[in-house]
Amino acid sequence: MPSIVIAQGGGPTAVINQTLCGAIVAARRHDPSLRILGARHGVRGLTRGDLVDLTALSESDLERLARTPNSGLGSTRDKPDPAYCQTILQALEKLDARGFIYIGGNDTAGTLDLLRQQSTGSCSFVHAPKTIDNDLMENDHVPGFISAAAFVANAFVSMDLDFRAMPGIYVAIVMGRHAGFLSAAAAGWQQAPEDAPHLIYTPERPFSVEQFLNDVDTVYTRVGRCIVSMSEGVQDEAGRPLAEVLAAGAVERDAHGNVQLTGGDLGIEIQKALKQRFPKARARVDTLGYLPRGYLGIIDETDAKEAFEAGAFAAQSAFTGSGSVVLHYDGKRTSPRIVSLDQVAGRTRHMPDSFFTGANAVSDQGRAYFRRLLPPRPDIFTPFV
Amino acid sequence: MPSIVIAQGGGPTAVINQTLCGAIVAARRHDPSLRILGARHGVRGLTRGDLVDLTALSESDLERLARTPNSGLGSTRDKPDPAYCQTILQALEKLDARGFIYIGGNDTAGTLDLLRQQSTGSCSFVHAPKTIDNDLMENDHVPGFISAAAFVANAFVSMDLDFRAMPGIYVAIVMGRHAGFLSAAAAGWQQAPEDAPHLIYTPERPFSVEQFLNDVDTVYTRVGRCIVSMSEGVQDEAGRPLAEVLAAGAVERDAHGNVQLTGGDLGIEIQKALKQRFPKARARVDTLGYLPRGYLGIIDETDAKEAFEAGAFAAQSAFTGSGSVVLHYDGKRTSPRIVSLDQVAGRTRHMPDSFFTGANAVSDQGRAYFRRLLPPRPDIFTPFV
Repeated sequence: MPSIVIAQGGGPTAVINQTLCGAIVAARRHDPSLRILGARHGVRGLTRGDLVDLTALSESDLERLARTPNSGLGSTRDKPDPAYCQTILQALEKLDARGFIYIGGNDTAGTLDLLRQQSTGSCSFVHAPKTIDNDLMENDHVPGFISAAAFVANAFVSMDLDFRAMPGIYVAIVMGRHAGFLSAAAAGWQQAPEDAPHLIYTPERPFSVEQFLNDVDTVYTRVGRCIVSMSEGVQDEAGRPLAEVLAAGAVERDAHGNVQLTGGDLGIEIQKALKQRFPKARARVDTLGYLPRGYLGIIDETDAKEAFEAGAFAAQSAFTGSGSVVLHYDGKRTSPRIVSLDQVAGRTRHMPDSFFTGANAVSDQGRAYFRRLLPPRPDIFTPFV
Repeated sequence: MPSIVIAQGGGPTAVINQTLCGAIVAARRHDPSLRILGARHGVRGLTRGDLVDLTALSESDLERLARTPNSGLGSTRDKPDPAYCQTILQALEKLDARGFIYIGGNDTAGTLDLLRQQSTGSCSFVHAPKTIDNDLMENDHVPGFISAAAFVANAFVSMDLDFRAMPGIYVAIVMGRHAGFLSAAAAGWQQAPEDAPHLIYTPERPFSVEQFLNDVDTVYTRVGRCIVSMSEGVQDEAGRPLAEVLAAGAVERDAHGNVQLTGGDLGIEIQKALKQRFPKARARVDTLGYLPRGYLGIIDETDAKEAFEAGAFAAQSAFTGSGSVVLHYDGKRTSPRIVSLDQVAGRTRHMPDSFFTGANAVSDQGRAYFRRLLPPRPDIFTPFV
């Protein structure tokens, strides 16, 4: 019996199961006789025959699954080599798969592109996008990003209020290995010129601890508090991640060669540097870590809707050929489109230069982008202090 | 002209301004001719004449202020000595203050008790409770705690889903210097026996890194993942905070003698210990830090309502005498009462023994307590993995 196979790869998001459910619903609608199979833990499940039959999933289960954050099918960071690809292709053939929909980031798209190149069968390979890093090429923004950005924006308004109440210096280390979108989204709810974040450091601009301390000094003297958003992937002039430099080579890499940044080490070094330079100030560094990326309490409605639609579009596309679903913005509306896999696979989208003002601030254009994506900022009171 | 003076002390909460607004509204209602004054940055504002007139605050400003997290009047950690107290008392007399309402934790209650003892005038001293630590004596629970607990409960459901999708070990370091309520609240939304958190470490039970690693080993082997909630104030057998032991004496104390725990140092040590013991496992330590304590995105409605009522009750009480407002639970409803300041001042409420099962788990009774306080757990789907 012909089938559609769906899997999830890489890190989770708050809405990755919306995409899964969108794909299930659209595949069902297209051909009610199809078997819809989910592979547990990404391509690994395919190679092991570890599959779950999603064909008869009830409406109420679909609804509950859709609003549950993090990969419902499980995930993997396996990076298939040619032999691994052959095993996957054989598994897909055995399942009479008409399409393989893989929900993930640029590594996931890379896996699909490899499969497509090696495939001699008729199965299509469709990438459905997700990542909190927002770093997929050809996308205006990526499903999963808005919810994570909303988490971060809420955190920065909160910390601004906290440090108005008792002055000091606060640094939040935010996920983002190569792209600074999530750290910069902290600026999306800025209104007054003195609203946090006062400084933003991303992987796109070289970072030095010395310059950072000078920047903090300037803001702290002027505003009386200093709230900083820092990507865990900030790099020195030579392009080496600071966390890697600080860990003095004792870093780990995953199967895709990505350095495993914990952010925690970076945070400790930043905390030490602040303590030394500002011994009398209240200085605190928090590593937001995994919290923003699949937080049950902050799931954005637009994000959920777009993620569902991207999944549905991926399933529809699977009946005509391979490709990568991207979110296109026409100046008014966001809608899914399809591009070739190699336009997305293994490539990283960085924050455009126009989103920056200098090395430590987001431009008006950048802020406008994040404001367009984020839900409206809650109407709060400006404190008496 | 007679006045009521209100101030906020200590760390912020998500609903501390609800209490402020409750006090304003009730004071106004009691005597519309009263001046209602806010002292900026706690008692410090009184000594400096740094006051804001709240008498004519509009309804819409009150509504917006109430729903804004973190101290709107600013805060302080100043611990007045007898001379400092005299300056405060003179300031209150000059303002013709009939009552001084100070919103804060046990240190704040301590300041008020000192003022009451030294006062020769007719001003009453009323403590309105707030703390995310939930550690005030005589209270069933404390305004500010539920919102922080909801933040933590959401985090643990999310991390459980994350680590179902990709197995590993996760530790969240949660605020809590002497009392483990906030860390233990992570268990409030547990349903199935294998739901996170799998291990909970609080200051109430002695902690050793060796035992912790053995506990993790047991859970990780059995469940395939291990999610841990750890108070930043965990202590060794001798009662020394682990963060203090690890920092080898290089700790700082605030004016109240409280050790300044960042959680970050503890997190790094825990991360190192996990890496050594479980070199092949995905292991991550995040320090939630300041996030749960005044997060704009997670403000619990019950918490907001109770905080407002506590403030209103404090203002009403101020017209009859000094005391500390506490939240009483009669088995069905929570309502404010007043007790004497010395019942709360400078004392710490710990988690009762009945809330524990062994050294690393919350009992059914403990879980029931947290479940009663928390909003209903979102109805999510149990993943396929």
